[in-house]
Amino acid sequence: MERILTAELPAHTGQRVRLQGWLHRKRELSRVSFLVLRDRAGLAQIVVDAAEPLSLLPETVLEIEGVAVSNAQAPGGVEVHEPALRVLAEPAEQPPVELHRPEPKESLPTRLDAAPIALRHPVVRERFRKTAAAVHAFRATLDGLGFVEIQSPKIVAAATESGASVFPVDWFGRGAYLAQSPQFYKQTMVGVFERVYEVGPVFRAEPHETARHLAEYVSLDAELGFIEDHHDVIAVARGAVRAMIDAVGETPPDEVPIVDFDAVRSGDEPDLSPEDERRVCREHGELVVVEGFPMAKRPFYTYPDPKNPARSRGFDILYRGLEIVTGGQRLHRYEDYRHALAARGLGEEPFAGYLDAFRYGMPPHGGFALGLERFMAQALRLANVREATLFPRDRNRLLP
Amino acid sequence: MERILTAELPAHTGQRVRLQGWLHRKRELSRVSFLVLRDRAGLAQIVVDAAEPLSLLPETVLEIEGVAVSNAQAPGGVEVHEPALRVLAEPAEQPPVELHRPEPKESLPTRLDAAPIALRHPVVRERFRKTAAAVHAFRATLDGLGFVEIQSPKIVAAATESGASVFPVDWFGRGAYLAQSPQFYKQTMVGVFERVYEVGPVFRAEPHETARHLAEYVSLDAELGFIEDHHDVIAVARGAVRAMIDAVGETPPDEVPIVDFDAVRSGDEPDLSPEDERRVCREHGELVVVEGFPMAKRPFYTYPDPKNPARSRGFDILYRGLEIVTGGQRLHRYEDYRHALAARGLGEEPFAGYLDAFRYGMPPHGGFALGLERFMAQALRLANVREATLFPRDRNRLLP
Repeated sequence: MERILTAELPAHTGQRVRLQGWLHRKRELSRVSFLVLRDRAGLAQIVVDAAEPLSLLPETVLEIEGVAVSNAQAPGGVEVHEPALRVLAEPAEQPPVELHRPEPKESLPTRLDAAPIALRHPVVRERFRKTAAAVHAFRATLDGLGFVEIQSPKIVAAATESGASVFPVDWFGRGAYLAQSPQFYKQTMVGVFERVYEVGPVFRAEPHETARHLAEYVSLDAELGFIEDHHDVIAVARGAVRAMIDAVGETPPDEVPIVDFDAVRSGDEPDLSPEDERRVCREHGELVVVEGFPMAKRPFYTYPDPKNPARSRGFDILYRGLEIVTGGQRLHRYEDYRHALAARGLGEEPFAGYLDAFRYGMPPHGGFALGLERFMAQALRLANVREATLFPRDRNRLLP
Repeated sequence: MERILTAELPAHTGQRVRLQGWLHRKRELSRVSFLVLRDRAGLAQIVVDAAEPLSLLPETVLEIEGVAVSNAQAPGGVEVHEPALRVLAEPAEQPPVELHRPEPKESLPTRLDAAPIALRHPVVRERFRKTAAAVHAFRATLDGLGFVEIQSPKIVAAATESGASVFPVDWFGRGAYLAQSPQFYKQTMVGVFERVYEVGPVFRAEPHETARHLAEYVSLDAELGFIEDHHDVIAVARGAVRAMIDAVGETPPDEVPIVDFDAVRSGDEPDLSPEDERRVCREHGELVVVEGFPMAKRPFYTYPDPKNPARSRGFDILYRGLEIVTGGQRLHRYEDYRHALAARGLGEEPFAGYLDAFRYGMPPHGGFALGLERFMAQALRLANVREATLFPRDRNRLLP
């Protein structure tokens, strides 16, 4: 008999069925036991007529053959009667977290330590199914706009963003680093495909442990050529983010306003504070683009506003009070790169391969990057980005 | 005027059009010049009536407005007349590789050194467009079978496959490693989603530089639970590989035979030699599954054949004479893992998080891994896996 999934039970009412899954919960009364079986599709109630109690630990892997019977009281309206149980795998002991509660009750550190089991909680599991849907929506949006997916190397000879916060790697006895972003490679690939994107890990040796930073996270990157200015980039980023919000079951706002940095900054800081970000969203909407950041706080490859060179063509997108996207137009002329590196006191040698792309003709271009876990935490209103990460990495956590 | 792509020219015959791209080639006659403009969609011929020669370097980024005119001699049957040229970016010098030849003529090392430019060659570029199509086909096949995409960490506390050939990372002053595969994580996630896949980088400190090994490559991984044996895994792997072959424009074979290791081995070696792999494909077909490998050459998590414990439920898939997929059924009982680690003299401590997944109930499961660049090299009949890698990494190459 073919296995069916728990979600398919109602279509098999009155028939003999075969289910497979985990013992999610057990309730033993005097003459009957109720088992709840969990599989990837949902839960099913199994009614066992048994005088003697079943010695099954939670998370026992079971195969069950029985009859699907309509019962309005059962979850899903159908339960399984006259079951024959077969144990496929026995746990060694009681799990360290309770999976049958409506919401996980253990502390975050406890659940992270026990991630292989804690991730099985249906509520937690569904978060990561939504993560997959969000990534799919990102790719589908960009595929539809003629972008090509690339994979760039994660071991690099030079730090991308700055010398700080980079992880050294022992590369056959030589020094190398983990890539902080695919920035140089996605720009280089604009010379090849005009429009590219990448979904992959990036590494930041963040010295601080906060609720919104990870040392390794998944970056959704895009870059496009032949733009007029950063507004062409904003249009693509906005479309991708709206599609992702929709994919996780939230409603993307109809309006995504673009506000000016100078109009929303507080004080003289050249960047927005966390409180500024929250205020901008309170005042302007769930999803807001901020443009016109000062050049001082943007990376060397940022394109300055020709009318006001202290101002950049960089932008951020804020979602529910937190920056989730950073992007902008980039420099594209070789001489501009040479001047920008010199102005920041950076030598050209570590950037040689990158500079080659501009030496041989690159169109005006720009792009953006979105942190996947941070986006998911905002979309699902999770207080800590680690709630949206399968196996988080930070300065104190390298396991499991 | 909206920019159109070169491939859209025929639909605009007789109209004024705006094109953007790179100067791919230039041919100057006494009273007329022919420019070939390259964009992401193709090539277009531009006819310039000019007495004086155009001082434009190859790869100059151009915007061209002119009239689309039918001409059977022109590539694509349409060319652009009366062009107004605008330079969007000037190269600093002549490129180090010739992009206008039908095939790249420079040596592989020269092209790898100049990758940012060499990848612009239309023939080379199309390889990587096909790579994106292959990855898309892999994901679409597995999505259709109820698999969920995951992202697992690439910085890990313990080596997955063996202590050798692993890259050490300085993790905030502590020792860590780059993941050699997502093996432990994808197995763990079978406990959550039953069926998972991942597309991501893996790292092997390969001491040898061969035409088919890289130190960093893209691994396409899948893992599924509630299997009967490794044949359920083979069925999924075969479907994914066939879809990928189709996606790159090759014809997947109708028959994918499964042959037994003992029937195709040469001599007493517990593994197939490269010559064995070529012979198996000569004798059995382009795409062949080999099963029944000895346990001795498979990793500790491999499930032994219950009828013959020296024989494993591991398999390889060979494509045109080279192994492109390795897979098999895995152990799923906690006690089996403890015994398997002890039998290989491995301690349990480095595997603690991984073992937790089995301690709390895991179904019979298995999976497979496919090296993307190696698959592409075979599919496109490239002699070196580096021809199918944007920016290869090996013991001698860390740039660009």
